[in-house]
Amino acid sequence: MSGSQVLLIAGTHGNEINAPWLLDQWKNYPGLINNNDLTVLKIIGNPEALKEGKRYINCDLNRCFRKELLNDNSNKDYEVVRAREIIKTFGPKGSNPSQITIDLHSTTSSMGSSIVVYGRRFPDLAFASLVQSRLGLPIYLHEGDNTQQGFLVESWPCGLVIEIGPVPQGVLHPKIIDQSRLAIEICFEELAKLNKGLACFPEKIVIHRHIRSIDFPRAENKRILGVVHPERQGADWKPLSKGSPLFMKLDGNIETFEENEPLVPVFINEAAYAEKNIAMSLTKREVWNVLDDWKYELLNLICLGTN
Amino acid sequence: MSGSQVLLIAGTHGNEINAPWLLDQWKNYPGLINNNDLTVLKIIGNPEALKEGKRYINCDLNRCFRKELLNDNSNKDYEVVRAREIIKTFGPKGSNPSQITIDLHSTTSSMGSSIVVYGRRFPDLAFASLVQSRLGLPIYLHEGDNTQQGFLVESWPCGLVIEIGPVPQGVLHPKIIDQSRLAIEICFEELAKLNKGLACFPEKIVIHRHIRSIDFPRAENKRILGVVHPERQGADWKPLSKGSPLFMKLDGNIETFEENEPLVPVFINEAAYAEKNIAMSLTKREVWNVLDDWKYELLNLICLGTN
Repeated sequence: MSGSQVLLIAGTHGNEINAPWLLDQWKNYPGLINNNDLTVLKIIGNPEALKEGKRYINCDLNRCFRKELLNDNSNKDYEVVRAREIIKTFGPKGSNPSQITIDLHSTTSSMGSSIVVYGRRFPDLAFASLVQSRLGLPIYLHEGDNTQQGFLVESWPCGLVIEIGPVPQGVLHPKIIDQSRLAIEICFEELAKLNKGLACFPEKIVIHRHIRSIDFPRAENKRILGVVHPERQGADWKPLSKGSPLFMKLDGNIETFEENEPLVPVFINEAAYAEKNIAMSLTKREVWNVLDDWKYELLNLICLGTN
Repeated sequence: MSGSQVLLIAGTHGNEINAPWLLDQWKNYPGLINNNDLTVLKIIGNPEALKEGKRYINCDLNRCFRKELLNDNSNKDYEVVRAREIIKTFGPKGSNPSQITIDLHSTTSSMGSSIVVYGRRFPDLAFASLVQSRLGLPIYLHEGDNTQQGFLVESWPCGLVIEIGPVPQGVLHPKIIDQSRLAIEICFEELAKLNKGLACFPEKIVIHRHIRSIDFPRAENKRILGVVHPERQGADWKPLSKGSPLFMKLDGNIETFEENEPLVPVFINEAAYAEKNIAMSLTKREVWNVLDDWKYELLNLICLGTN
């Protein structure tokens, strides 16, 4: 990848402040994150929202990367304009192009560090397998959700989201910063190894495949009628079995999981998702073989970068 | 207190959503909180900010209760107008008056449940002593901070803030809701006992007296240069001794506490306070006698309410 570049994005959501702060500090302490001789483009996704400490100004930047929106020049929402600008400058065909992007997020859910990939794009899966083999991070495969589209990384041929939690919005947290730094560094190490032909892919990866999201119990007027059950709060990645409590109403009534197949909840009680009618997402844990085609596609991208 | 009223306020900050939700649910389930035959006025402090999921619209409602602001009719900030409205309606001389108020808050700090009192007003201290004797909650006595003035409860002859954490802003959390419910119920029980002449005051209370607040290390351009040290994060109420780490820069440099007298930090890394240049507040733990004058002033207020 000598000559090629990787795009590192922080603050795609303006109230997720740990990664932007880490990148800012990296300027002060160049040894803070080992870039492994990669050329790293570092940008703040949503600088205006970061200034205001809000997730977004007009709309969620990380749902703006849909062709219809990007091509609709009458749409002047701040985030849509910003999405066009980021692609024009740093996209795969931009003026300062990159083929691979890493988008840094945090969550109020107790998910620890994890990788999110969107759809079954081979380079994403190959890259994620390398990072999982190093850090053991769970991979959340988000796909097939028509109500949630237009994620930033989908505009690059390869892109991972790193999610780290739990941390409240607007709080700088030493552990979150340290976990972010570690995840970034491992991503860079693996990209550097790919560049040198030294990447060592695992045989298998563990995927948490998105099945569907579920909302809080709500009244007809949309008011929330029940909270996440105490047994479920903070229990991301812990499989549900038939009868597992999900939500609790304050009269003591409990909504339970009633399927026979165990599913694994993620993004439980993420603050930003209540407005999206998501109390948690349910996934299926699967073990997949790491296919040679995945590796070739990722290696081809790396070669493309060096041309 | 038969015939008198207690004012219960939730959502003074619009992104502290647990108490407003609890009050809303109380309408659905009248048995949810035992009001002990008190007449309870329930209001949302900042309904517009609650709708928008923000702490405030124009300025912090819980700093608006200063005479200069309230009397300056040229000031049309949403929160200043709202403060005037609340006092006009529910203040001690309002159209629907109350002498005692309980203001419900949440914090991102790991403070558990606590009581905040402002200044050394006798009825506050007496009421707080009763609640502490029941639940053991720590009392944070806020006083003598010229940069933080105009708290809501100061406009009533007696008023306590209940603070519960940790919880991210915008997250409904079963434990926080349960702790809020318990604290409210105990406050009501003690007020009901006072009304019947059955209150049983403790001999002593433990006070955490505000000494000063400290800011994050910052550059000249106000940028934060260091995070709360991992040993300090989540360690509210744990006394500092000479050499205790406070902040950590990412080059490994650590700022330490360098006083001989042990102080006790609270509101460590409260998300809303970074804009107020507060990374944590330092308090002195003291044991005070519960004075008869405190009790008489509180009992007089209760009698006033019944006249």
